[in-house]
Amino acid sequence: MSQTTDQTPLDVSPEDDAYVLDRKAIAAILYAVEVQDKQQLTDLMEPLHAADIADLLEQVNSFDRRRLIELYGREFDGEILSELDEGVREEVISALAPAVLAEAVRDLESDDVVDLVEDLDEPQQEAILEHLEDADRVAVEQALSYPEESAGRLMQRETAMAPEHWNVGECIDYLRSSETLPEQFYHVILVDPRMRPVGNVTLGRIMGSRREVLLADIKEDVFQTIPVTQDEEDVAYAFNQYHLISAPVVDEDERLVGVITIDDAMVVLDEEHEEDILRLAGVGDESLTDTVSDTARQRFPWLAVNLLTAIVASLVIAQFEGTIQKYVALAVLMPIVASMGGNAGTQSLTVAVRAIATKDLTGANVWRVIRREALVGLANGLAFAVLMGGISVLWFGSVEIGYVIAVAMVINLVVAGLAGAIVPVVLEKAGVDPALASGTFVTTVTDVVGFFAFLGFASIMLT
Amino acid sequence: MSQTTDQTPLDVSPEDDAYVLDRKAIAAILYAVEVQDKQQLTDLMEPLHAADIADLLEQVNSFDRRRLIELYGREFDGEILSELDEGVREEVISALAPAVLAEAVRDLESDDVVDLVEDLDEPQQEAILEHLEDADRVAVEQALSYPEESAGRLMQRETAMAPEHWNVGECIDYLRSSETLPEQFYHVILVDPRMRPVGNVTLGRIMGSRREVLLADIKEDVFQTIPVTQDEEDVAYAFNQYHLISAPVVDEDERLVGVITIDDAMVVLDEEHEEDILRLAGVGDESLTDTVSDTARQRFPWLAVNLLTAIVASLVIAQFEGTIQKYVALAVLMPIVASMGGNAGTQSLTVAVRAIATKDLTGANVWRVIRREALVGLANGLAFAVLMGGISVLWFGSVEIGYVIAVAMVINLVVAGLAGAIVPVVLEKAGVDPALASGTFVTTVTDVVGFFAFLGFASIMLT
Repeated sequence: MSQTTDQTPLDVSPEDDAYVLDRKAIAAILYAVEVQDKQQLTDLMEPLHAADIADLLEQVNSFDRRRLIELYGREFDGEILSELDEGVREEVISALAPAVLAEAVRDLESDDVVDLVEDLDEPQQEAILEHLEDADRVAVEQALSYPEESAGRLMQRETAMAPEHWNVGECIDYLRSSETLPEQFYHVILVDPRMRPVGNVTLGRIMGSRREVLLADIKEDVFQTIPVTQDEEDVAYAFNQYHLISAPVVDEDERLVGVITIDDAMVVLDEEHEEDILRLAGVGDESLTDTVSDTARQRFPWLAVNLLTAIVASLVIAQFEGTIQKYVALAVLMPIVASMGGNAGTQSLTVAVRAIATKDLTGANVWRVIRREALVGLANGLAFAVLMGGISVLWFGSVEIGYVIAVAMVINLVVAGLAGAIVPVVLEKAGVDPALASGTFVTTVTDVVGFFAFLGFASIMLT
Repeated sequence: MSQTTDQTPLDVSPEDDAYVLDRKAIAAILYAVEVQDKQQLTDLMEPLHAADIADLLEQVNSFDRRRLIELYGREFDGEILSELDEGVREEVISALAPAVLAEAVRDLESDDVVDLVEDLDEPQQEAILEHLEDADRVAVEQALSYPEESAGRLMQRETAMAPEHWNVGECIDYLRSSETLPEQFYHVILVDPRMRPVGNVTLGRIMGSRREVLLADIKEDVFQTIPVTQDEEDVAYAFNQYHLISAPVVDEDERLVGVITIDDAMVVLDEEHEEDILRLAGVGDESLTDTVSDTARQRFPWLAVNLLTAIVASLVIAQFEGTIQKYVALAVLMPIVASMGGNAGTQSLTVAVRAIATKDLTGANVWRVIRREALVGLANGLAFAVLMGGISVLWFGSVEIGYVIAVAMVINLVVAGLAGAIVPVVLEKAGVDPALASGTFVTTVTDVVGFFAFLGFASIMLT
């Protein structure tokens, strides 16, 4: 373990498996559980960060997980719950004794409680909310009233703010006497008399300035407010694009209602990426800890869609049964054209989907990008036409077959480039997540065009 | 535009296109360039954040880009260079007048200069380094002596630190009088007499505490140091996993050599994700601004590998030419089995590749995950066997063909699940990036197994 909470920085090995939970540590913990040695378990778990304990709970099997939680008992920290994957989290919450759950939750910041309860079903949500103090419960319930995945769910309500006319000395005195400061903060937000944020001052600038310096004179150059209803994906984008550390959240009247810090934005950025990667592969919001039947059910729909598109492609092939029967070499070669088209299409669509997500593909350059993809398809299409055409002539001793596959290759790779660029853009315009649906459309296009071009051209050339 | 540098928070629309450069703004800027109105251009560009100007430069064509830079002249800011994509960056640097380049670079922090020059070719690197002041140049050259993509390249050398025995008052007095504080900092690092970091104190805690409180008493619970040679991907992981805001970087003797802040870690996280997504699709480090020939050349190798695997699959088909000629329905159906296997394999491998990247798939659960993938493949294989078997019977009026495709479907989906889980794990063990190479291996396996199972079983059943 490289993580310490005991103030002694342990050596973190610079190897590839830095930060991976090591097998020996896991084995020792499971052994302590096996022999029901609570002291030993507590000693082994103590140096671990909550995030690592959560990973550990995810990686052991369900039986060990339950025994570990029971033995660990009252030591169970609320932060571990925050760090757990959804599926395991529900299981752990039902395994925790009510008193342990109550204590674990009471230690959490209100924005962490929101994150914890928003995906739970009603009874579990109730069970947690009833353990909170009144003020915290109201805060959580208010946060839950904002749309899912919005800035309002992400922000913390406690802020460090100061009137815009204060000087450094007044600000420091106020911060020292204030009881309601957030746990972590990096800026003091300057507000006007109507509570509208007008600037940010970093704590570093405040600490480095003399007491009589006006806060307004040491404001940050770049200042960005976030509307409370903004989608969290856009919030993460803004933090990444403008290198924000924290940003005030405002309601529709531009009044300050909370603050979002970069660590929360980073978690969102990570989740959004994960979602994009999985969606591009036709996998939903699944995690390694899901059961076999949950996973099979989640993957079924995409495979079913794929079956439909594969059948459409087969219908195209069926039109040319006569030709295939005569020239069985066509059956041997035809998957090659489809496969090349599918791969080239996936390349184009992945680049387009990413560029849309990073807001690099916009109205200003969309036509240039589409043209570029078509030309790239043409260039590689020509290259592989020569290559595969030559191979086919040698393989089947027929110049006609070489010619047929060469033409089909060029057509299919150009179409793959076009479809790969156009489909995501059109889906995005239509309000559909291009990461989710582009693959199906593009592969259908390349399969159908590939088989049709190859077999159709063959039926003309060879008969 | 939603970004302001003039301290008045503009309304950011909560719609889907928040933060997208709007077409009107781009058109107005290009018009100003067209009519060579420098004042108008400066006025339009002034409210834009450097990151948005960089995006703008990437989205316009090469001709407009050059004219814009020439007209913008001395206003050109170093930060814009930092934000540009690599390809465009080189072009912009050669378009800038030497005096403008010199001034732009001199404003940058040394870690930004490192980021800027590390990918440039020798002459451009020289051109930039010679404009730096001596101290900065030495700092940059030292950073460049660390391995590429290591913590040493990412860190800034200026740190805010204090001896561990100081109290809050001493620390504030020191910070006020110090001339060499970093531009942005969020923690004061406590060091022992040998300059080894022993803890972090947040500025918020310092500001909120009385002068006589000891720094050691208000240290953070969680404290993590980063070895200077650690891979930046692991650095980003540590920030995300442990919710770090800044972390001290240490040399092999555990001495403080710099500090990494979360905004830099977030940029790395974003880049690593981008790389994974693109690699999974067989696309290298490309960007939308690359030329057609560069892009075609970059995508060629993956397509060539795919051609090879497709030919291997075709060789399998060629073994069954006789059977296909007799039952041409097999040629119609055979792409369906391969396509379903390919998709199921992609689902499994994407989940596995992600889980390896997030360190959720480890020695502790690898066998459970492989077993799960096989069982998921079995479950969906059985479902699609029934479905596609039934469809085939209806379509071709042959129970045998329905039976053949059903058996092939089950075999191929189980194999897809196994290969999807095992291939990335084995590649990772072998030191190959699983995101890069898994797809090829898994698709080859599913194509070969799919065609072989389907056609082989058909040749037994039907003759």
